[in-house]
Amino acid sequence: MVDTTACTQIQTVLSELNSALVSRDTSRALDLFAQECYWRDLVAFTWNITTLEGKAEIRSMLDVRLEDVRPQNWVIDDEIFAQRSGEVTEGFLRFSTAVAHGYGYIRLKGGQIWTILTTMEDLKGYEDPVGRRRPTGANHNDRMAAPTWSEDRHREQSELGYTTQPYVLIVGGGHSGISLATRLRQYNVPTLIIDKNGRPGDNWRNRYRTLSLHNPIWENHMPYLNLPDNWPVFLHKDKFADWLEAYTKIMELNYWGATELHQADYDEHSKTWTVQVDRSNERITLRPAQLVLATGLASVPNVPDIPGQDTFAGFQQHSSQFTGNEDMENKRVVVIGSGTSAHDICADLAVQNQDVTMVQRSSTYIVRSETFLKHVLHPLYSEEAAENGITPDRAGVLSASVPYAEFFGFQKQAVDASRQADAEFYQALEKSGFLLDYGPGGSGLFGKAITGAYNYYIDEGASQLIIDGRIGLEAGLGVKELAENSVVLEDGRHIPADVVIYATGFCPMSDLIADTISPDVADKVGKIWGLGSGASKDPGPWEGELRNLWKPTQQEGLWLQGSLIAHASYYSRFLALQLKARMEGIPTPVYGLQEVHNVK
Amino acid sequence: MVDTTACTQIQTVLSELNSALVSRDTSRALDLFAQECYWRDLVAFTWNITTLEGKAEIRSMLDVRLEDVRPQNWVIDDEIFAQRSGEVTEGFLRFSTAVAHGYGYIRLKGGQIWTILTTMEDLKGYEDPVGRRRPTGANHNDRMAAPTWSEDRHREQSELGYTTQPYVLIVGGGHSGISLATRLRQYNVPTLIIDKNGRPGDNWRNRYRTLSLHNPIWENHMPYLNLPDNWPVFLHKDKFADWLEAYTKIMELNYWGATELHQADYDEHSKTWTVQVDRSNERITLRPAQLVLATGLASVPNVPDIPGQDTFAGFQQHSSQFTGNEDMENKRVVVIGSGTSAHDICADLAVQNQDVTMVQRSSTYIVRSETFLKHVLHPLYSEEAAENGITPDRAGVLSASVPYAEFFGFQKQAVDASRQADAEFYQALEKSGFLLDYGPGGSGLFGKAITGAYNYYIDEGASQLIIDGRIGLEAGLGVKELAENSVVLEDGRHIPADVVIYATGFCPMSDLIADTISPDVADKVGKIWGLGSGASKDPGPWEGELRNLWKPTQQEGLWLQGSLIAHASYYSRFLALQLKARMEGIPTPVYGLQEVHNVK
Repeated sequence: MVDTTACTQIQTVLSELNSALVSRDTSRALDLFAQECYWRDLVAFTWNITTLEGKAEIRSMLDVRLEDVRPQNWVIDDEIFAQRSGEVTEGFLRFSTAVAHGYGYIRLKGGQIWTILTTMEDLKGYEDPVGRRRPTGANHNDRMAAPTWSEDRHREQSELGYTTQPYVLIVGGGHSGISLATRLRQYNVPTLIIDKNGRPGDNWRNRYRTLSLHNPIWENHMPYLNLPDNWPVFLHKDKFADWLEAYTKIMELNYWGATELHQADYDEHSKTWTVQVDRSNERITLRPAQLVLATGLASVPNVPDIPGQDTFAGFQQHSSQFTGNEDMENKRVVVIGSGTSAHDICADLAVQNQDVTMVQRSSTYIVRSETFLKHVLHPLYSEEAAENGITPDRAGVLSASVPYAEFFGFQKQAVDASRQADAEFYQALEKSGFLLDYGPGGSGLFGKAITGAYNYYIDEGASQLIIDGRIGLEAGLGVKELAENSVVLEDGRHIPADVVIYATGFCPMSDLIADTISPDVADKVGKIWGLGSGASKDPGPWEGELRNLWKPTQQEGLWLQGSLIAHASYYSRFLALQLKARMEGIPTPVYGLQEVHNVK
Repeated sequence: MVDTTACTQIQTVLSELNSALVSRDTSRALDLFAQECYWRDLVAFTWNITTLEGKAEIRSMLDVRLEDVRPQNWVIDDEIFAQRSGEVTEGFLRFSTAVAHGYGYIRLKGGQIWTILTTMEDLKGYEDPVGRRRPTGANHNDRMAAPTWSEDRHREQSELGYTTQPYVLIVGGGHSGISLATRLRQYNVPTLIIDKNGRPGDNWRNRYRTLSLHNPIWENHMPYLNLPDNWPVFLHKDKFADWLEAYTKIMELNYWGATELHQADYDEHSKTWTVQVDRSNERITLRPAQLVLATGLASVPNVPDIPGQDTFAGFQQHSSQFTGNEDMENKRVVVIGSGTSAHDICADLAVQNQDVTMVQRSSTYIVRSETFLKHVLHPLYSEEAAENGITPDRAGVLSASVPYAEFFGFQKQAVDASRQADAEFYQALEKSGFLLDYGPGGSGLFGKAITGAYNYYIDEGASQLIIDGRIGLEAGLGVKELAENSVVLEDGRHIPADVVIYATGFCPMSDLIADTISPDVADKVGKIWGLGSGASKDPGPWEGELRNLWKPTQQEGLWLQGSLIAHASYYSRFLALQLKARMEGIPTPVYGLQEVHNVK
């Protein structure tokens, strides 16, 4: 049933906002906002991804951008979802600008605007040809003598990168690169993906044999084609890998496997990159206008320097090299780290009755999988949500509609509920000596993730193995050195070891820029990811948005695309729209280009 | 908005029906039916696919089946779709039986039951693990030491057909076989598909280069995974072929390409087939309990015997061999036939300014593609229908809910509307000499298709080429013989010809049974397809259902699966449920097993 009171409240505010903005009356518009207020914009107003916090910031943005954006036609949308809870009334909205159609979300508190999200949905004249705008297809009279679909595809694939140039080159063909390339193809932007692995999905296939996605299926949809209705909630890595491969073909992407980025230089005059890549045994020079790094947050393994690594008598590897097929029989394994990989690897070994010890250097956020689904994900990512019309797009909007300054508080409610539900579990885990935390401000997994702290684990069973002592645990101390046959902790104790596995995460993305483009460009772009929250891995100043993701960087023509599947898939639209506008020569004045923060 | 009056009317009748059936009071149940009435059942009541026409037939069925079926819990479902139009009130319904959950559709006329459709949706205890019943997947504690998803898949694929036997063997890996295998896998029925072509989709890839599907995308969805939102309305054959290949992998089907059926024998004692197949260079013996032929209605080319074929100096081929890459330059091409292939091939040649003549031996139904979409398909197969919640399943129910005796009349309304819309087009086509008809009783394309007459064409442009004289036309006469350099018509006229293409359709499916199993079994099964309508290719007696499709045949253990994509996909559920029940030993007493009609 539609909540008509909520709808009326929202439409009233939107009509007043419309009237104020159409008459360029910023003060009257600001009167509609509550004292504490946020305007988050994804490309529609700012050609940027930015959150304006408070009236002063909103006023500054409108003063600069209003005349150019010319927003109008503000209306409530998807009325069935409008709702009231306490003093908050919220719902979806639509609007248009001079160059685009917009979609968004609003929250009123006491009748005034508390949060508003504005997103660019489509560029006018370049609307996404989807659904009712699908192309007719190939078989009509005037096309009968033309090349067929497959002839066109073969020609495109043989020419692109050789006699024709991609407008966008995407480095990295995991889910992030694939999502973006799919949107760009849909927008008719010539695009090429390169990836060092042979086939799409190899980034998953190469991981340890027992790995499954820890996020449920509803969080793993990519654009235009949801995962099948009959697939399980948690996908084995190889099944998802096969999906990525099939999806790449279904979406007709231009994908060069077994291709490595060798060197990239940007020419400020011609506004073109010169990119050398090694495709199998051939060095090829590409000249894209735009270069996107989509190599992910888990690209280059990070192995800490520990004294004694060169004299340790056993076998050492990074968690990303662990396959689960190593012969570990009768070997004592020490896993350094306590994030997802550490837990998965320890569990894999423990259920085979291997002697395995986890070295937990610092506290970790743990949440039981069932509880995470029920208390955290359920409203946006569940079968019930899907049945109720929460499509991946709507889930993306709802998720994006919470300004980061409020994000920790929103998350804390769900985290508190799951703590309560699993109080006994957490007690047992603490009793085993495991060091727990609940993320910055109690915001749990998502709070950790966006502040760049990956020491969390969605429990699929490893925690019980720790509680039961089947996984040995050394908690709270760092590693001092490796001796010949042991790992030596900071307090001098020796943990006997024939194998050491470093589940110690990955290097920052800026290292990749330094390696493949130049240290200067890496410095120019600065830190990637993190909000500036002040959490341990997320030094300030406060940015209020993820640094450098999906938006202009200080290096013209260089973009970063990444994150979890749902996240990367949703934001790929906004990066694609920015690139499309640039290709079409639509002016894209960036409001509030982020400052650079270099944190080494 | 829900039509509450319609809902109340429907629920009232269903409640009374429930009460009468629960108390086994057949007479009281029959009082709820109108004098003219139909009960169509898909497996739920009859373990058969059958339509009971009139009260006497319904009474006979209930007398035999009611005690066993024990139907109850009749309720309206999907209330949003309940509607009234004139004296007819209609809507979806649910019910249950002793062994199954049921879904269906009812039409009331003047408050009494005019048509009712009952379908088996799920066997109790074996409910389809889809949506809310998805499996959790592989990554839980108790499964950690078990083989992974990919290890399980590899083992299954290497063992099936060698050390383990499929319960069902499907011959033919086009969309029909693939749909059925997908449902069977979902029901945990060991299944193997064999196909003579190398890869799924090759049945499309091997056709002429310009071929596109003439049915729009909404009619081409297969179970559990709709085609992507961003794909065009009409798919080029190679694109759909790639989809079939990807889908086969996504659905984890066991598919042997490059495998031919050599011989199949049924042992009445062991209730097992002994099937010899040639897989690449290996002869393998399979022992399935059930054998399904899904080779399609277009499997074995039909080339008519025409005197002079052996002395004709030019090149001859069947339309299925035409690729469009033949060198036809400066050659005079005669295409015999006037169905879809004939039109497509003529158009392909004409737009390249080839000299091509169509020999139309008998009248043809033509409908312009746009008009067909608008007037015939729109309510069930369109973007608007999809947006309004007409899923492929609901479209299947709505389509199945019309008893075949009323089907021609239902279709005639839409056909009449499209005739009116395109009156000028039809006049121009007639003026060119083209012989038009409008299907049996004016029922158009679907009326033709279900009565086994394939001389129809959804116009994508060839008709205009005929009107414009760019495709030559000889209409109304058969071919008497081939001379050395010409096709000779029945009136003695010579049509000069360097190439003759036989667009003369395909052999009946029973020929394949005769060839690969035995002529005796072919005779036992009898005619396949057609209703017994008395139309030219559909001699009586009236059966009121498609003969031998998706339901028990007179040959135990032998089944036929086929038809257009939407049709085959929808009915594959009911064939899969019949096979599952047999595998699980659930009694499946068949009511009204069809009699055999042999029509040579």
